[in-house]
Amino acid sequence: MQTIQELVAAIRPLDETKKNQAARHIDGLVKPLNSLGRLEALAVQLAGMPGLTTLDDLQKEIIVMCADHGVYQEGVAYSPQQVTHLQALNMLKGTTGVCVLAKSNHTSVLPVDIGIDCEPIEAMLTLKVGRGSGNIAQGPAMSRADAELLLLRSARLVQQRAAQGIAVFGTGELGIANTTPASAIISVLTGCDPHEVVGIGANLPAERLQHKEAVVRQAIAVNQPDPTDAIDVLAKVGGYDLVGMTGVILGAGACGLPVVLDGFLSYAAAIAACQIAPEVKPYCIPSHISAEKGSRRALEHLNLTPYLDLDLRLGEGSGAALAMSIISAACAMYCEMGLLAESGISLQA
Amino acid sequence: MQTIQELVAAIRPLDETKKNQAARHIDGLVKPLNSLGRLEALAVQLAGMPGLTTLDDLQKEIIVMCADHGVYQEGVAYSPQQVTHLQALNMLKGTTGVCVLAKSNHTSVLPVDIGIDCEPIEAMLTLKVGRGSGNIAQGPAMSRADAELLLLRSARLVQQRAAQGIAVFGTGELGIANTTPASAIISVLTGCDPHEVVGIGANLPAERLQHKEAVVRQAIAVNQPDPTDAIDVLAKVGGYDLVGMTGVILGAGACGLPVVLDGFLSYAAAIAACQIAPEVKPYCIPSHISAEKGSRRALEHLNLTPYLDLDLRLGEGSGAALAMSIISAACAMYCEMGLLAESGISLQA
Repeated sequence: MQTIQELVAAIRPLDETKKNQAARHIDGLVKPLNSLGRLEALAVQLAGMPGLTTLDDLQKEIIVMCADHGVYQEGVAYSPQQVTHLQALNMLKGTTGVCVLAKSNHTSVLPVDIGIDCEPIEAMLTLKVGRGSGNIAQGPAMSRADAELLLLRSARLVQQRAAQGIAVFGTGELGIANTTPASAIISVLTGCDPHEVVGIGANLPAERLQHKEAVVRQAIAVNQPDPTDAIDVLAKVGGYDLVGMTGVILGAGACGLPVVLDGFLSYAAAIAACQIAPEVKPYCIPSHISAEKGSRRALEHLNLTPYLDLDLRLGEGSGAALAMSIISAACAMYCEMGLLAESGISLQA
Repeated sequence: MQTIQELVAAIRPLDETKKNQAARHIDGLVKPLNSLGRLEALAVQLAGMPGLTTLDDLQKEIIVMCADHGVYQEGVAYSPQQVTHLQALNMLKGTTGVCVLAKSNHTSVLPVDIGIDCEPIEAMLTLKVGRGSGNIAQGPAMSRADAELLLLRSARLVQQRAAQGIAVFGTGELGIANTTPASAIISVLTGCDPHEVVGIGANLPAERLQHKEAVVRQAIAVNQPDPTDAIDVLAKVGGYDLVGMTGVILGAGACGLPVVLDGFLSYAAAIAACQIAPEVKPYCIPSHISAEKGSRRALEHLNLTPYLDLDLRLGEGSGAALAMSIISAACAMYCEMGLLAESGISLQA
């Protein structure tokens, strides 16, 4: 995977034969037909993924892409920019929301410095090409070359982690001000007005929401991203963390492995990834419906129905962490339930 | 708890002081205020329960009430009646849906024979007063005295399990034909027409749905249950499993402990429990929105919003098992996340 073309070409369709076999197996389990609903559909989907040879005891990891954003200078965020750096340190300590929720769901967390505005952090993996992306209200977030480089680096990181045994990936992020570029990406790629998408992020006061929306409009006007070219959109009005998440999604698809989306930021990355490579769509697993304003619109565009309704808007990968229990449950159903045939049960009187 | 009055009187309101302390603690965690949404609200709710002295590492158990139903004879179910007995044996073996999903969520399962139409099952706990309840289309399911006896036995079972360390209960059931009495209970106690409530249960063919609805109407007409007296409703148009689940809910409330509802059957039991003792409501935790037809109506009556949307209609407690991961996550957030004050993070720029 030295080029985007190679990355995209590596993503294969799900194996229909394996899916059909899985569906037949599930129909033989001790329960009324189809009575485990979406858990059954999820197990069939997983069984069809070419990178999974078993559904038993899958190792799970959330990759948390951490970066700063030049557009912070426009006053679009409530928290100080240095929170990205401080909270990245907490990711290493395991005290953040995503770390705690991931641990509760037997999932590891891998934080990655993909562009925090700080000196290198000891013991933290880095893929970074710069300290914070450009201010999208004034110009591009990054060059197209940097966007492609980070997409490939992120996808290769997934490949390495898969080689080390990770079978299920989750997308996480950390980056003060990053709902602004995410809103811009979703607006451009779904063709909807920023007003439908821009929300309060991490507690932006209501009176500053109109300003944030204006900044998104300005970013789109200044950069004129090409809505038919998601890499152009990511480079011009995105950010390093969003590019990294897109790379994680494409990388998981290239490995034939599932990737669990989180909330608003990951919807933006998934929309970009699915435009770059529509074949990656069946590898994307939804988790929760984020409380951020544009979430429903973004999920409709992705045609994904979340499993969880928890009114979350933390990000970090926290919703993906919670959904790991649903993946585990679908796999447990598949691998551990008894068979009708072994129970002497006939379902029909 | 020798009488229903004593059982009801034992249910105390949540401790508002403990709830407020918990909310303040959560506001100090390393995350934007309120950004973990319903997970925060759940932790506050749990913290206010007088039976919980900590939220750390809570032991969880699903009590599966198993019973047969005389109304089976009316042709309201698709599966043979003996499936109740056969599947109860699978509960002991751990091969059923609820057993596997509970194990995946570090939750034990306690199956209880509360009226299966079979000889005593070795190694299975029994509370039973009869082999299968009466045919509600012809007369009452049971006497009021038996209903009260089973309510108290079930509540005392919860008390015993709590004494042995269980801190979170889940409601499960197993009983061929039991969506028919559940529909009758929900119709009578919510005042809505059976047509709004009666669904296909475990795959009843569509052409038999009208007959099932007619049987529910007949059960109500024949028995004339008093809609202001939930015990009368349970005794006349309910069933042993439904009475047992109602007892589990009331028993958990009496112990000051949370009880996680499952799907359609547990909505019926919860509606009955909340009418018998409105104080039990804050101890009831929803899990999923069941695919059974009357679910939305029942949850609206309970004013509960489920966390999970998985299109499940297995019953057994399978949805409650899945929601145990959300309880664990809320507790992990509460007990394990770092503090803003320790991270040098100020949330406002």
